[in-house]
Amino acid sequence: MSAKPVDFWLNNVTMNNNVLEAAFRFQTWNGPIKVVSILSTVIFPKNAHFPIDASPIYDGPPHLASESYAYSKRSLAQLTQWYRKQHKCDFVSILPGNFFGAYGDFNPNTAPLVNALIAKMESQKEHNPTAPLTMMGTGTPLRQIMFAYDLAQIVIWAMENYNANEPLIVAGEEFSISQIAQLVSEQVGFNGYLQFDNDTKNDGPLRRTADTSQFERLNPSFQMTPLSTGIKKTIEWYIINKSKALQK
Amino acid sequence: MSAKPVDFWLNNVTMNNNVLEAAFRFQTWNGPIKVVSILSTVIFPKNAHFPIDASPIYDGPPHLASESYAYSKRSLAQLTQWYRKQHKCDFVSILPGNFFGAYGDFNPNTAPLVNALIAKMESQKEHNPTAPLTMMGTGTPLRQIMFAYDLAQIVIWAMENYNANEPLIVAGEEFSISQIAQLVSEQVGFNGYLQFDNDTKNDGPLRRTADTSQFERLNPSFQMTPLSTGIKKTIEWYIINKSKALQK
Repeated sequence: MSAKPVDFWLNNVTMNNNVLEAAFRFQTWNGPIKVVSILSTVIFPKNAHFPIDASPIYDGPPHLASESYAYSKRSLAQLTQWYRKQHKCDFVSILPGNFFGAYGDFNPNTAPLVNALIAKMESQKEHNPTAPLTMMGTGTPLRQIMFAYDLAQIVIWAMENYNANEPLIVAGEEFSISQIAQLVSEQVGFNGYLQFDNDTKNDGPLRRTADTSQFERLNPSFQMTPLSTGIKKTIEWYIINKSKALQK
Repeated sequence: MSAKPVDFWLNNVTMNNNVLEAAFRFQTWNGPIKVVSILSTVIFPKNAHFPIDASPIYDGPPHLASESYAYSKRSLAQLTQWYRKQHKCDFVSILPGNFFGAYGDFNPNTAPLVNALIAKMESQKEHNPTAPLTMMGTGTPLRQIMFAYDLAQIVIWAMENYNANEPLIVAGEEFSISQIAQLVSEQVGFNGYLQFDNDTKNDGPLRRTADTSQFERLNPSFQMTPLSTGIKKTIEWYIINKSKALQK
């Protein structure tokens, strides 16, 4: 469990409640307000089957690691539905898988996979260009991964086009961890050897595939940015903004 | 689902969050504060096995009928545990089964079973003393039922003696609906015939037994008030306070 479950709960649930209630009240003066809330895959139950869709969200507790954050996000999904039910508000929610990109966390210890790899490889390229880079686990687990710009486009699309009770699941193409590391290393121009430490570090879940068929049905023409392009654009931003990015 | 799920959620979760956070902050000036929060059996998943104990609380969604109230009570159970974890607060929760008694709801349409029966039989005894009274279903479902005074005593006991992470389940002895109706009719002195309408009205769940073994282990000497005594005392209060009770 997170070391500060109370803070995660109070901060997040208070924000959720205040934003939705404010949007509901404001629209009584000014006409309808659309709200697109962003959930997280942490809300899925820890024993969910793959591919995960929106139906089993509440069929068991989430992972303990981010329990109170997960419950605050679950309550946001529910509150969205309750505003639709009680007040006929046009509130919806989107449930995105892993994403990466500019303006995110690049601290190697806390950043999501792609951003952490970019920061580590850029640093090593500068300071120790031929040393091997050790990654945790075997590199074989699969992860769906999406460029943050695509998620932003989907949020804008949902503003205009999505109006349903269920959270809309969106996720990028699925790659193995080692494929993703390979792509980052090519784009960074990192020449060190990638090695995997499977003796002292375990793999996480081997797969965590979300079912994106509903989004594909509703928005069939949407083209996700190719992973190599997303990585390239993120590196371009990172190189210019490195000092700011690492202060986070 | 309740017609006002947003209101139930916002009112209850805001109260829960504010009371626990206030208790936590106040104790930094004045020494430790104990909080005993009261949950409800609505938090159990709708497909729970009997006897219900505290372990499957989150193993599935609660009944839709009181969904947002149930989620606010679930979050109270969790927040209690998170304050214990993050701030070492001596916060606990009690999960009571059905109870009845003075100062409660006596509106025949909304009151819990015993109070509703008292109000109906008292009214019929006054206005139509020999007419039959029709009850919904077969009368055979079993319900644990507890005098509110006993619950109050247990809350006071828990203030001094309970200090654990899990909600403490407390519930009264188990009777069938028809046994309970028979006892109320004896205490009211209602002479009409009790009949059961199983053609147009269905029974609710046949059993909803909560596992009270933990409470019995911790407080083995506690004696619940006999049901007939609890009913008698509630009727005494109701007769004196009828007009006030029915205004609720």
